[in-house]
Parts: sequence; C-alpha cells; structure tokens
Amino acid sequence: SRGREDGHVALVGAGPGAEDLVTLRAHRLLMEADVIVHDALVPEAVIALGRRDAERIAAGKRKGCQTRTQEEIKALLVTLAREGKRVVRLKSGDPLVFGRAGEEMAALRDAGVSFEVVPGVTAALAAAADFELPLTLRGVSSSLVLTTGHDLKSRALPDWAKLAISGATVAVYMGRTNAAEVASLLAEAGLSPDTAVAVVENASLPSRRRLHGTLADLPALQDRTSLAGPVMTIIGDAVAGADFTASEPLRARVAADSPA
Amino acid sequence: SRGREDGHVALVGAGPGAEDLVTLRAHRLLMEADVIVHDALVPEAVIALGRRDAERIAAGKRKGCQTRTQEEIKALLVTLAREGKRVVRLKSGDPLVFGRAGEEMAALRDAGVSFEVVPGVTAALAAAADFELPLTLRGVSSSLVLTTGHDLKSRALPDWAKLAISGATVAVYMGRTNAAEVASLLAEAGLSPDTAVAVVENASLPSRRRLHGTLADLPALQDRTSLAGPVMTIIGDAVAGADFTASEPLRARVAADSPA
Repeated sequence: SRGREDGHVALVGAGPGAEDLVTLRAHRLLMEADVIVHDALVPEAVIALGRRDAERIAAGKRKGCQTRTQEEIKALLVTLAREGKRVVRLKSGDPLVFGRAGEEMAALRDAGVSFEVVPGVTAALAAAADFELPLTLRGVSSSLVLTTGHDLKSRALPDWAKLAISGATVAVYMGRTNAAEVASLLAEAGLSPDTAVAVVENASLPSRRRLHGTLADLPALQDRTSLAGPVMTIIGDAVAGADFTASEPLRARVAADSPA
Repeated sequence: SRGREDGHVALVGAGPGAEDLVTLRAHRLLMEADVIVHDALVPEAVIALGRRDAERIAAGKRKGCQTRTQEEIKALLVTLAREGKRVVRLKSGDPLVFGRAGEEMAALRDAGVSFEVVPGVTAALAAAADFELPLTLRGVSSSLVLTTGHDLKSRALPDWAKLAISGATVAVYMGRTNAAEVASLLAEAGLSPDTAVAVVENASLPSRRRLHGTLADLPALQDRTSLAGPVMTIIGDAVAGADFTASEPLRARVAADSPA
C-alpha cells in the first residue's frame, strides 16, 4: 500500500473525442487528479471533466508543432509523481494503441513510480460507429487491422496490404496526408479499385465530417486540405455495409476543395 | 425528430467486463432504457447499471448454449422498438468488433427502426492494460491485428500470420480452444518460437487470470481447462515489453492444470 506522500500516474485513454465517450473510470480519475498532462489531440471538453483547480499541462505534438519532447514528458511525469501528485496522463483514444505509452511506462517503471493503465475507446471504433459500419462481418471480414501507415515511408508494400486483399478490414490512423500512397500500394498489392472506403474527420464529435467512395477515389482525400482534424480511413468489403446517407463522396464533383 | 410513440434501439458496447469501463454515454443510455437485451458475456454488474425496473432479456450464446438464434434477436429488437420501447442492445466490448452488429443494424434499417451505435472498449485493449503491454511500439510494431482465428478452421495459413512475422501485434479473441492451432500455423509461417505471448482470462475483472510465455509455450494453453471465461491471446515482439510480475508461466511446472 502506498503512503500519503507517494504520487501515482494513471495513463488514461481519453476516447475518440466526445466527452461522454470516456469511461466511468477515466471520469473518476480525472476528478481525482491534481495534474492532467494531456496530448494536443484531446478536446477541451474532455480535459474540462477534471477538477476546476487541477493543473493542466499540454504535452505532445500537433501537426509537427511540438510543445515538449517525449524525453521531457517522461521526466515531467516522474517529477510530478515524486512530488506526491495524483497525475492523469491523458492520451487520445486508447493509451496502448499509437499512444507511445510503452516509452512512458518504461520510464515510470525505471523510476519506481506507481502507475496504472486505463483503456479507452480507440478512434477506429468511433469512426465505424459514425458510419454504422461493421468492422467485422461473417463471411466477409474476420480480422481488423489498425495501422498508421507510417511504414509506407520505405515505399515497401506493407504486409497489411495483403491482409486487406484476403478480406480484412483496415483502419488507417491519421490517413489524409498519405492517402494517395496508401491507395497506390493497396492497388499494387492487387486490391480491387472498387473496394469500399470510408473516411471520418473528428470521429464522434459534432464537427465530424464523413466521406466515402472506393479505393480508386482515395487519392482525392489528399487534396482535401480543409480537413484539419484527425482523420481515420477505413478500407474493406465490410465498409460497403455502412450507411452513407450523411456522407459526401470522396471524389467531389468540383475539383477544388472549399475552404473550411 | 421522433414522436413519443416511436421506439429506439441503441447498440451499445458494454466494454471488456469491469462496470466502470463502460462509457458515460453507455451509462446514460442504460439508465434511460426500458429494455436491456444483453449478450451472455456481459457481466451482471454492467447489466445492473440500468434502471431497477428495466426489463432484462438474455440473448446470444455462451459456450454453444444458445438462448436465442440471431434471427430471433433481430426480430425481438424490431418488435420492442415498434412497441415504443427505448432498447439498449448491450454487446460485450465494442458492438462493431466481432459483435455481429452488422446483421442487427441491417434488420433495424430494413424495418425502419431508429437506432444508434455507441462504441466501447474492445477486449484486446483491456487485456493489454492488464499486462501494461504496449500494443504498438516505435521501431517494433506499427500495426495491430484483431482476429478470432475462426478462419483457422480451413487449416489454411491465414494472412495475419504473415503480418505477425513482419512485426505486427496480433490479438486473438476467444483463443484458448484453438491455441494449439494458432501456435502451429504461426510457427509454420516462420514466426520465431521465442516470440512473446500474453494471455488474459476475464480481462479487466477482479477474477482475471494472466499467463505468459512464448509461441512455443502457447499450445499448453489448450490444456488449461480451468479457464472458463473469455480468453484473449496477444502475440508479438511488443508483448515482451509487458509487466509479467502478476502473471504465471503458460507452461506450468506441473503438467496437470489445477481445477478452479
């Protein structure tokens, strides 16, 4: 059991964006926290769930604009805990999926700081809910791949491309700026140009924007520079079962994207 | 806008098991529901979050013991909504991941019934949190595959086996009874026998049980007949970064599994 003087860090999934998609446990920890260290992608409304007098510290990067390095964040968490603070380290979605929690957990372990991990709703699930899109579907898709597409930098064909062809649903996190590359590599791998694609900006939020089309249409996403929020791209045959009535075509009739 | 007489169905993710890992939205909908139609895997404590006087209906199967067919569940949801009821259809984890929500959404759409989807924390994320296990890790794993291993029935090598070799983390839902088959196929595909494996029964619950080892140890899981709850098996190099202090070895020193 911990003494009164000991601090504690909770690595908490903030969920996809909507403040009522945090878990009850995350909500309780936010209300108990002395300090909330949050990533830039976590919306204000989620951070506001904490106590009014809790200290809020922005960490992590947004669109290349880095407030603190990963090393600084790790040192900060250790320092705060050693000061006896109850710290919530709030990460977009789930902390263990593309949240770099591995590095922070290692630092906390090395420093002997008490910590816990609270899972959250990862963005792909919220994006799918926005589209009423079954991510797995009997006889169509029995696997789901979550990926960043960062490994596309090497121009090598990633293995998840083959998985997409065998029927898996693929969710690409932060997919706008490499949409053309994702599309071309999947086409090279032999995925049909008719494969259904769904794209959500700001999943789960009132500001969300939905687009849909086929793999052949996907490169057009890259020109949608008005999409400034986080983008989720979901590709696969199961996507065809989605509801597209509130969605706009990926390949717009007008070539230029209207400014937001 | 809906009239007073119209019913509504919310397909709600119950999360991995712990009652405080439901979302605030799921909690609110449960408290507003007239009827809660829940899968067998959803624990009592989560179902109890609903109003005391709400009707509870068990649906779905557990270990082959089916209370209602999928056709009956679809018809039930439509009937309840047409009676003007606010229905929560509570599914383990996230409704769109291995929850057969696709079929239920299609039935509701065909019947013209108003519905919404509320994402939840899927079991793989809770199992990883139980192990402080980063599912993605810079330079180690840039993709995560969620799969059931149901496609193993054909004895064909599933494509996600290749993905595991390229460094992806693989989470197999309901993996105890086909553990030996998963292990043998992954070994055939060329995955190193030393690859780290983590197994959680009853992820997120106080009754959880954690086991760990390597791919070579994985077949031993099949003999652990005392594991009666849902089992999640996570395989990959990122698993090596987990905390195994509260975990027991997959390959027990004593050959026979002690009865629970």
